[in-house]
Amino acid sequence: MNVSPRVKEILSWYEGENPGVKTNLARLLMHGKLGGTGKLVILPVDQGYEHGPARSFQPNPPAYDPHYLFQLAIDAGLSAYAAPLGSLEQGSDTFAGEVPLILKVNSANSLATGVPDQAVTASVDDALRLGCVGIGFTMYPGSDQCFAMQEELRELTREAKSKGLMTVVWSYPRGGAVTKSGETALDIVAYAAHMAALMGATIIKVKPPKAGVDLKAAEKAYETVKQDTLTDRIRHVMQCSYAGKRIVVFSGGDAKDADSLLKEIGEINAGGGFGSIVGRNSFQRSHDDAVALLDKIIGIYKG
Amino acid sequence: MNVSPRVKEILSWYEGENPGVKTNLARLLMHGKLGGTGKLVILPVDQGYEHGPARSFQPNPPAYDPHYLFQLAIDAGLSAYAAPLGSLEQGSDTFAGEVPLILKVNSANSLATGVPDQAVTASVDDALRLGCVGIGFTMYPGSDQCFAMQEELRELTREAKSKGLMTVVWSYPRGGAVTKSGETALDIVAYAAHMAALMGATIIKVKPPKAGVDLKAAEKAYETVKQDTLTDRIRHVMQCSYAGKRIVVFSGGDAKDADSLLKEIGEINAGGGFGSIVGRNSFQRSHDDAVALLDKIIGIYKG
Amino acid sequence: MNVSPRVKEILSWYEGENPGVKTNLARLLMHGKLGGTGKLVILPVDQGYEHGPARSFQPNPPAYDPHYLFQLAIDAGLSAYAAPLGSLEQGSDTFAGEVPLILKVNSANSLATGVPDQAVTASVDDALRLGCVGIGFTMYPGSDQCFAMQEELRELTREAKSKGLMTVVWSYPRGGAVTKSGETALDIVAYAAHMAALMGATIIKVKPPKAGVDLKAAEKAYETVKQDTLTDRIRHVMQCSYAGKRIVVFSGGDAKDADSLLKEIGEINAGGGFGSIVGRNSFQRSHDDAVALLDKIIGIYKG
Amino acid sequence: MNVSPRVKEILSWYEGENPGVKTNLARLLMHGKLGGTGKLVILPVDQGYEHGPARSFQPNPPAYDPHYLFQLAIDAGLSAYAAPLGSLEQGSDTFAGEVPLILKVNSANSLATGVPDQAVTASVDDALRLGCVGIGFTMYPGSDQCFAMQEELRELTREAKSKGLMTVVWSYPRGGAVTKSGETALDIVAYAAHMAALMGATIIKVKPPKAGVDLKAAEKAYETVKQDTLTDRIRHVMQCSYAGKRIVVFSGGDAKDADSLLKEIGEINAGGGFGSIVGRNSFQRSHDDAVALLDKIIGIYKG
Amino acid sequence: MNVSPRVKEILSWYEGENPGVKTNLARLLMHGKLGGTGKLVILPVDQGYEHGPARSFQPNPPAYDPHYLFQLAIDAGLSAYAAPLGSLEQGSDTFAGEVPLILKVNSANSLATGVPDQAVTASVDDALRLGCVGIGFTMYPGSDQCFAMQEELRELTREAKSKGLMTVVWSYPRGGAVTKSGETALDIVAYAAHMAALMGATIIKVKPPKAGVDLKAAEKAYETVKQDTLTDRIRHVMQCSYAGKRIVVFSGGDAKDADSLLKEIGEINAGGGFGSIVGRNSFQRSHDDAVALLDKIIGIYKG
Repeated sequence: MNVSPRVKEILSWYEGENPGVKTNLARLLMHGKLGGTGKLVILPVDQGYEHGPARSFQPNPPAYDPHYLFQLAIDAGLSAYAAPLGSLEQGSDTFAGEVPLILKVNSANSLATGVPDQAVTASVDDALRLGCVGIGFTMYPGSDQCFAMQEELRELTREAKSKGLMTVVWSYPRGGAVTKSGETALDIVAYAAHMAALMGATIIKVKPPKAGVDLKAAEKAYETVKQDTLTDRIRHVMQCSYAGKRIVVFSGGDAKDADSLLKEIGEINAGGGFGSIVGRNSFQRSHDDAVALLDKIIGIYKG
Repeated sequence: MNVSPRVKEILSWYEGENPGVKTNLARLLMHGKLGGTGKLVILPVDQGYEHGPARSFQPNPPAYDPHYLFQLAIDAGLSAYAAPLGSLEQGSDTFAGEVPLILKVNSANSLATGVPDQAVTASVDDALRLGCVGIGFTMYPGSDQCFAMQEELRELTREAKSKGLMTVVWSYPRGGAVTKSGETALDIVAYAAHMAALMGATIIKVKPPKAGVDLKAAEKAYETVKQDTLTDRIRHVMQCSYAGKRIVVFSGGDAKDADSLLKEIGEINAGGGFGSIVGRNSFQRSHDDAVALLDKIIGIYKG
Repeated sequence: MNVSPRVKEILSWYEGENPGVKTNLARLLMHGKLGGTGKLVILPVDQGYEHGPARSFQPNPPAYDPHYLFQLAIDAGLSAYAAPLGSLEQGSDTFAGEVPLILKVNSANSLATGVPDQAVTASVDDALRLGCVGIGFTMYPGSDQCFAMQEELRELTREAKSKGLMTVVWSYPRGGAVTKSGETALDIVAYAAHMAALMGATIIKVKPPKAGVDLKAAEKAYETVKQDTLTDRIRHVMQCSYAGKRIVVFSGGDAKDADSLLKEIGEINAGGGFGSIVGRNSFQRSHDDAVALLDKIIGIYKG
Repeated sequence: MNVSPRVKEILSWYEGENPGVKTNLARLLMHGKLGGTGKLVILPVDQGYEHGPARSFQPNPPAYDPHYLFQLAIDAGLSAYAAPLGSLEQGSDTFAGEVPLILKVNSANSLATGVPDQAVTASVDDALRLGCVGIGFTMYPGSDQCFAMQEELRELTREAKSKGLMTVVWSYPRGGAVTKSGETALDIVAYAAHMAALMGATIIKVKPPKAGVDLKAAEKAYETVKQDTLTDRIRHVMQCSYAGKRIVVFSGGDAKDADSLLKEIGEINAGGGFGSIVGRNSFQRSHDDAVALLDKIIGIYKG
Repeated sequence: MNVSPRVKEILSWYEGENPGVKTNLARLLMHGKLGGTGKLVILPVDQGYEHGPARSFQPNPPAYDPHYLFQLAIDAGLSAYAAPLGSLEQGSDTFAGEVPLILKVNSANSLATGVPDQAVTASVDDALRLGCVGIGFTMYPGSDQCFAMQEELRELTREAKSKGLMTVVWSYPRGGAVTKSGETALDIVAYAAHMAALMGATIIKVKPPKAGVDLKAAEKAYETVKQDTLTDRIRHVMQCSYAGKRIVVFSGGDAKDADSLLKEIGEINAGGGFGSIVGRNSFQRSHDDAVALLDKIIGIYKG
């Protein structure tokens, strides 16, 4: 693997990390159809945990089988596959070495109500044992549990990095001062990305931001932030992520028609976003449709 | 013990597990009258803890004696016997090697009110010391304690598997977004089974699902799920358990007349369920009635 | 598995052990063609470590493959298969649950000279992870390293038993006051067996004793010990093993002709020995010859 | 990375290992010009430690610089680069992700006399921190320190594998019953490889064996072992390595003329050896000569 | 403190180290009269331990007082002061922050005979507690204790660096294959420096090498190594220290006349050495003579 100049440039931004973390980041960034471009598309499948199995897999029943999901990530030439413990255990032997794996180490579920929170359901040693390049963690800034979640994240990050693993942080503001519709407002998403960078995330995942400011105190600051188009807004989120020197990827969100999705991804790319995490928009389509759509997404990031 | 081809096939689905876990799973699946078929019937006796002794044992007073319960599991040729610490300690020397044991490591009681939860009342080292093939754990997805319970389960699972023991997870949604009657709705039971699989359960125990959808958000997904008969519903639960590649067993539920129970078990078997956990329907009958009924149940699973 | 009355009687002699150890002992004693008789035949293959691969496997080249050895133990209906770490790792997934395994946790080699000793090359946690019923350990009473070896044995035994595993002790006097030819003298072998019992061995392995007394100080005591026939001598070794209440098995020794071996085993059985550990006399023969010979050995122990 | 069918076959022989170990083995076997063939060529540079810097690097002074050695492994398209701690620390940031790394965790030196031994000079956590695929360890069976070295190896192997890293074992009999000239006799080399397999080595490194038997006790066994050509002898060493189911690589030995080396490698390949570890024969030549020679070596293994 | 370009270049060679280690190295390299030049002069005072107090301090009795030694290092504008635990404890409060400190963590004494060795007499936590920039450690490659010493060094280095401290390694071959006069032969000194680099030393201390080769096996390699002048020999030692990319400092040796010392230092500087460790040649002179001499030494390194 000759690490490309662009990937070497990206690695240089992570100067505080040991060679192990950089090696695992290089493995991910050099893998799949986008290998070497510095862009990435990840298949995440924790929706079964979050929303239940039928809402997740009934639109495309072969996806009930964990092996199908590994194979989809491989067939589509994606950069990585992220999933909870049980799902990785069920396929990581069969598919050893075929696609970089990210172990999602905490999980929420739709049956729980009350304060937004997640259970820590896997460990750094599990990630090592399963051959993963990193761990994934969701935090809910704003939640009454946000300090506890960030303390969990800190401990897991410290351990992961000391053992050469990356951390991927899903930063999803929820609760507290954040209104329901404000969860994807520009100021909130930018704040979420920034906080993840401050926590030491190697890769940051946020949702594509809508125009608007949710926190009253932030309104004045946003008078000079251009936010008319999604491209503008992505550019601002990237700026809030160490002036673009952290890898930020954006979720595809609810399943939607392909054209809307591709247009959105065109703007993410134009705004300097590093890539997408595409879950329901891939595994809820048939295998061939999903591979075809992911190929178009990859084409956009290839430029 | 020549491990049967069917059991070898089942073991192959647990590719992430070490040979110790597979050996203990093989011990259970090769034991008793169903040995080698891939089907299983387990005697669980934690009702004394959950409901108090008189509600549990007064219908058949010999069952007050723990030795009676070991002997019942042996006489009926069951696959395993599951019970809390004290009960196993009281008979595991006398009955060493005669029936696979599962140590139930957490327990609720009927005196406590408030948030659904259980106490961790035994350890993995207890299970090793008592010669068990695995540990059992109950979680209540939906409960305000569900994240804490899942973290307990995760730690116990990690330790158990590293020492070659299986985990059996009783997944019983309760509280939160789950209505009382919805606890056995199809979507909730399927979700419960799926979550246990994602947590890494070796064997999953849920209740037989009723028709209906409890979570509003899941209604649309269920439009295409066939759920007219219990057979249909079992089939769906199995699909939600890694496309049928996890062992799921179903509780017998409240004591009921034998015919209803046998009909229900016929449908569990027809739907691809792996077996039953039969507590009150066995130990609350007289010894001979229980053995006779269990023999009929076993007959159904033998096909 | 209905544990036979004879095996239950044997288990009763191990009253200090927890149910886990008894369960694993029961698994071994109820397994294979001798299952339930209280007699046992074990296939040990650590000769590759001790004598090198060609001396061990060249007489029957298929035995170079570890899977062959698992299969031999299974095909011959033996009670257990004992081997070092690498060999068990190389087959314990494929053969999970098919034959009780004993992990040999220390090993010598023929290249080393100097004080008789062995390296500890595996751990109790390895044994659990690989699904073993126990660990095996060789000690050399008499060696200048004998106290260190016994301290290693003590630590490993303590840990193994606390986790429900048996210990099998190869007790081979060597060095110190023991002459080379005296290593198999009656007094030395009896002493070796007794020391293993005193160390807490679950199963004791010694060599068939020759007539004669090696330690001068013991000569007087042996005036009243009958030792004319091997049967007499085996009877004495058993007496020295807690009046026959410890399982003692005898090695087959160097490869020899079948008739000599069967005659020897007839005497071991007549003298109350519990069984044989047959290595070179089985795996250095062709598969079919080995199975046939082992069947005759088993026939003798069945009586 | 589509793992090739041949590499998947090789991975299947390591059934006792977790997916992490298999993933790291797949990374090595899919890397470089031999990626996917199942064959491998490794650049090892610990000669500076073993023989001193001038004996190692004076023939080609650019090699005094650790970066030169990383670059050589990359330019030649080798499978991996193995070196002691300081050397990997000095380049693993610059070359992160460009070539699989093996951290040599023990080291001898030419100044020490007395019992053959090595110092443990690095740890498993160092290997993780530096992004390595595995650790390397030298043992000297026969040495009066051999039991202590094997116990060190056992502990390091256990920790490495639990964290998903491979172990590469340099097995070099020395001292004890081994004569100086016998160190590379066929029986000794075969025994060395076998012992490493029994210790759980993922990759075994030995020297190409000469004809002859060094241990008197082994002479008879070798009467039926064909050893006329190096090809024959390699075949025997592979047979002693779990019937060819362990990866064994052979050292290039002292610097020698290219034709002799290539002829030797042709025989290693013909005999079923998996590859070569080429140190002095590569880094003591000029960069371009080394790359050209390594390309020829790779050509032979490509077949 | 603006870190000079030359010091930044030196820091870049330590790419495997965390920012803490680099920060402490920068503190040392930016301190004193040589601050920013990349050169350094260190005052070491462990001769009291090594040779006894009178041999060390009687020539200049004020040096019996530890405060005198701190003050000398400060007055002379040295880069650092290195001493054993008690000496640093006795002055590090008074002189907190005035001169970078190195805690010498092992010590020999002249009363002991037998195998060359040292006692570990201080810990990494002591160094942190006393505000040191690093620890110092002496190893004796060649000694029968050399493997044990290297294992101590490895553990101390790992801990020191993980806590952001540098390691300074005194590498003094002694015993084994090294003749008494050969201890400062060129091949031995170069080997000593190389080994320290491989162990991960931040700063390496060796003695100025004499012409000649002590190890017979190295003679051939040295045919092409220019060693006529000390300058030549220093250049070779630097080449053996990662092609000059490790900081190597040279001892002043026995007390000698100023002119000889200055001439020697002129050659060390000309050969690319990074500086000197000057003990007896400074503290055994009167304060003013010592400061004057050190100023001349510093002048040479300033160029």
